[in-house]
Amino acid sequence: MGKHSTNMRVKLPIFCLLLEAITILLFAIFVRYNDETDASEWHDRMKKHNESNADNDFYFRYASFQDVHTMIFIGFGFLMTFLKCYGFSSVAFNFLIAAFGLQWSTLIQGFFHGFHDGKIHIGIESMINADFCTGAVLISFGAVLGKTSPVQLIVMTLFEVTLFGINEFIILSILGAKDAGGSMTIHTFGAYFGLVVSRVLYRPQLEKSRAREGSIYHSDLFAMIGTIYLWMFWPSFNSAVTAHGDDQHRTVLNTYYSLAACTLATFALSSMLNGEGKLDMVHIQNAALAGGVAVGTSAEMMLTPFGAMIAGCLAGIISVLGYKFLTVCYCFNDSPQY
Amino acid sequence: MGKHSTNMRVKLPIFCLLLEAITILLFAIFVRYNDETDASEWHDRMKKHNESNADNDFYFRYASFQDVHTMIFIGFGFLMTFLKCYGFSSVAFNFLIAAFGLQWSTLIQGFFHGFHDGKIHIGIESMINADFCTGAVLISFGAVLGKTSPVQLIVMTLFEVTLFGINEFIILSILGAKDAGGSMTIHTFGAYFGLVVSRVLYRPQLEKSRAREGSIYHSDLFAMIGTIYLWMFWPSFNSAVTAHGDDQHRTVLNTYYSLAACTLATFALSSMLNGEGKLDMVHIQNAALAGGVAVGTSAEMMLTPFGAMIAGCLAGIISVLGYKFLTVCYCFNDSPQY
Amino acid sequence: MGKHSTNMRVKLPIFCLLLEAITILLFAIFVRYNDETDASEWHDRMKKHNESNADNDFYFRYASFQDVHTMIFIGFGFLMTFLKCYGFSSVAFNFLIAAFGLQWSTLIQGFFHGFHDGKIHIGIESMINADFCTGAVLISFGAVLGKTSPVQLIVMTLFEVTLFGINEFIILSILGAKDAGGSMTIHTFGAYFGLVVSRVLYRPQLEKSRAREGSIYHSDLFAMIGTIYLWMFWPSFNSAVTAHGDDQHRTVLNTYYSLAACTLATFALSSMLNGEGKLDMVHIQNAALAGGVAVGTSAEMMLTPFGAMIAGCLAGIISVLGYKFLTVCYCFNDSPQY
Repeated sequence: MGKHSTNMRVKLPIFCLLLEAITILLFAIFVRYNDETDASEWHDRMKKHNESNADNDFYFRYASFQDVHTMIFIGFGFLMTFLKCYGFSSVAFNFLIAAFGLQWSTLIQGFFHGFHDGKIHIGIESMINADFCTGAVLISFGAVLGKTSPVQLIVMTLFEVTLFGINEFIILSILGAKDAGGSMTIHTFGAYFGLVVSRVLYRPQLEKSRAREGSIYHSDLFAMIGTIYLWMFWPSFNSAVTAHGDDQHRTVLNTYYSLAACTLATFALSSMLNGEGKLDMVHIQNAALAGGVAVGTSAEMMLTPFGAMIAGCLAGIISVLGYKFLTVCYCFNDSPQY
Repeated sequence: MGKHSTNMRVKLPIFCLLLEAITILLFAIFVRYNDETDASEWHDRMKKHNESNADNDFYFRYASFQDVHTMIFIGFGFLMTFLKCYGFSSVAFNFLIAAFGLQWSTLIQGFFHGFHDGKIHIGIESMINADFCTGAVLISFGAVLGKTSPVQLIVMTLFEVTLFGINEFIILSILGAKDAGGSMTIHTFGAYFGLVVSRVLYRPQLEKSRAREGSIYHSDLFAMIGTIYLWMFWPSFNSAVTAHGDDQHRTVLNTYYSLAACTLATFALSSMLNGEGKLDMVHIQNAALAGGVAVGTSAEMMLTPFGAMIAGCLAGIISVLGYKFLTVCYCFNDSPQY
Repeated sequence: MGKHSTNMRVKLPIFCLLLEAITILLFAIFVRYNDETDASEWHDRMKKHNESNADNDFYFRYASFQDVHTMIFIGFGFLMTFLKCYGFSSVAFNFLIAAFGLQWSTLIQGFFHGFHDGKIHIGIESMINADFCTGAVLISFGAVLGKTSPVQLIVMTLFEVTLFGINEFIILSILGAKDAGGSMTIHTFGAYFGLVVSRVLYRPQLEKSRAREGSIYHSDLFAMIGTIYLWMFWPSFNSAVTAHGDDQHRTVLNTYYSLAACTLATFALSSMLNGEGKLDMVHIQNAALAGGVAVGTSAEMMLTPFGAMIAGCLAGIISVLGYKFLTVCYCFNDSPQY
């Protein structure tokens, strides 16, 4: 208790303020408005290319950005509240590391792509990418929830964001993989998700915390808020940085049907595999993720609607089966049922 | 218990997977991208009609679509959580039947309008219509909550979506009623709503479930989340498929003022009719619905702002009075007060 | 009890219905659609200025409007739910006074600016301004929560909205201050916020209500929903009525980074000043407000990203310090900790 207090009282403030000061310094040196957020550059560009204000990328992406922002801060924040012990902490720490993560990833992603004339140029697209990168950190956060101090979480954020940038750079620039509309970022995200998913889903504390049945009821409703926001806005997540026009439109459509099909498959498998035929909270959360991740890389392609649905269905089935048979230690029948 | 278990463990999975398989098969045979989601068709159209990517309907409707999506999954999902016994179930089953409903209504609505060259062509507008149709199902769901198994709910969805499509076809195509901007769909929706509303509002279980006062407090806050999302985004609901430009703009404005006026009238009537002058949760929920439904068909017309407000006011008054005097069995003074 | 009942049963309904009737009458006399919501005027304007439907202001502002709407009804509504005693009331009364406030401010703001040909002309921008004005009222509402009857709250709304309009008129029209993109409205808002903030944050009832520890847990999660929505959508709040193009884009970007930096500073100061190094709910709520208010007037200027971050940081630090040392009576160590 005393040690934890000192940690929180001394280390956290110093660490936060120091990191924030360094971040602001690096922003002052390297980060500039791009030609859509800088007043004179934008007016020059409008004249030069005969564009109007309506051509500013802001109007093509801002609604999607706010959906992604909601997924990061409400979606991920409340997804983890079903662990009663960490309800408030999970939302508050989610808030802290996401707020730091998006600043740091602006720098890291800026260094690796979009760096020209010795400066990082930022606008709505870099803000969406910063939120994406933060998403990867929050998934890892889920795996270590309740085991780490805020200082450790910020250190994790620092390293993970940096690694994310390097990984993205290797895939896109060195390996030269196609990055039509940034969907590779989402694929990377999916990969991170895959690596940590087993750890996310096995939690020995889970059983213990479940003991206080009285409040579980509400915790689950909070967790459903997180889950459903992730599910609803996944089409925005997949389409936020794809090309204008038919690409954004098609990505949304494919993701929408993939998610719907995934949900049916998940409910089916969940009640089939459960000894008592009841629905499991965690499975429904899987439905929110698997169907969207499944078409993350490919949602802008001409998948056809039924192709997207098959992908979503398979993702839902694999996700529930994987959860059942790969997480050996998890005692299924003792878990809370509805 | 054993019977219920078998139902859930055997019937639900088989039924879900079978229906999903049939749905995917029908999608594979009939459903294609429209000329705004298909890459080559969109590029052809842009060349032919001298359009730019900004003319893609996506940018006129996507923000509204996500608001409607939020109403369906958060709004309706949490509206019913004030019935404590069915809190988690109401959100989870809402999720299941909405996910199935939107796929099935894509097919049914597609067959009845938008079917050409032997194919259903889909895009953002058909997705909004699919969500609308799902809304009708969710209102009926409210009337049967706690009395039906998930399998029965999916069967209900199957039939109701089909009936919704036939009804829409009769009104729009056979009777030839004007469908400027799809508001007829919303009218139909309102009709459904009217038919089931008395059943929605009379629940003998309500009193029983209210007994556990301790947790009611939070249940009401969850229900308020649902209610307020429905109220806030109703302007998007009414305007999502109306014509571009002044029509969408005016529909939003009319609905906004209708809802605001309806809220005042509802609070007034609610405290007037209540023996102790307290507010009733269910009345406030009515405010969320009546003011929006009242201008559902007419919101794109040149109603004038005060015309919309009068409509909203009357809707609020009628809704509370109807609730008070038509639902005879409902024992008002025994209901929970604040 | 009896007095309160009479108040609610007789005064509230009469007062609400009378005010609503007067409001509708004033709307009928003075309020008209503007040239973007009126069907014939918009079609005339499109012809005259060679504009298309995509040029309708609706498409530049509606997504932001819905974010602001969410801040008003969900953000402010749930921000106050951490006072357990007033949980449901705070959301319900927030709903009532916001619904009245937006109608009344349409009239007041319309009389002071945008009044020509003897009429008030309304559209999406006036709707956003009406929501802004309502925001000021809701902040004052926080200061009097639990001490006032609904009738008093509506009277407060009536006066405060009128005062807001007069104040805005003095600043913008008489003093001739620059109002590029309406950010002055937000400044005024910030001023109101400053005036009431000490009253908002000192609540003797707080300690008492905190006694019932069992349900505090969930109250905080509801309050976090409010807080995070305010934080997430503040970029929309600051940019909703700024000029099209780079101005809206830059305002969003500056606010985004200001808020992120403010969050780090707030968490740092909060744990530093707390005797046990724990996070305080109210501080986190400050983070949601200070960073956004700090750049409210200036966010559309060429602040540079790091300038916005410095502003956010300082705002976070000042806000926590001000809360700690100015609210003398507030017994910090007795407050709930996490």
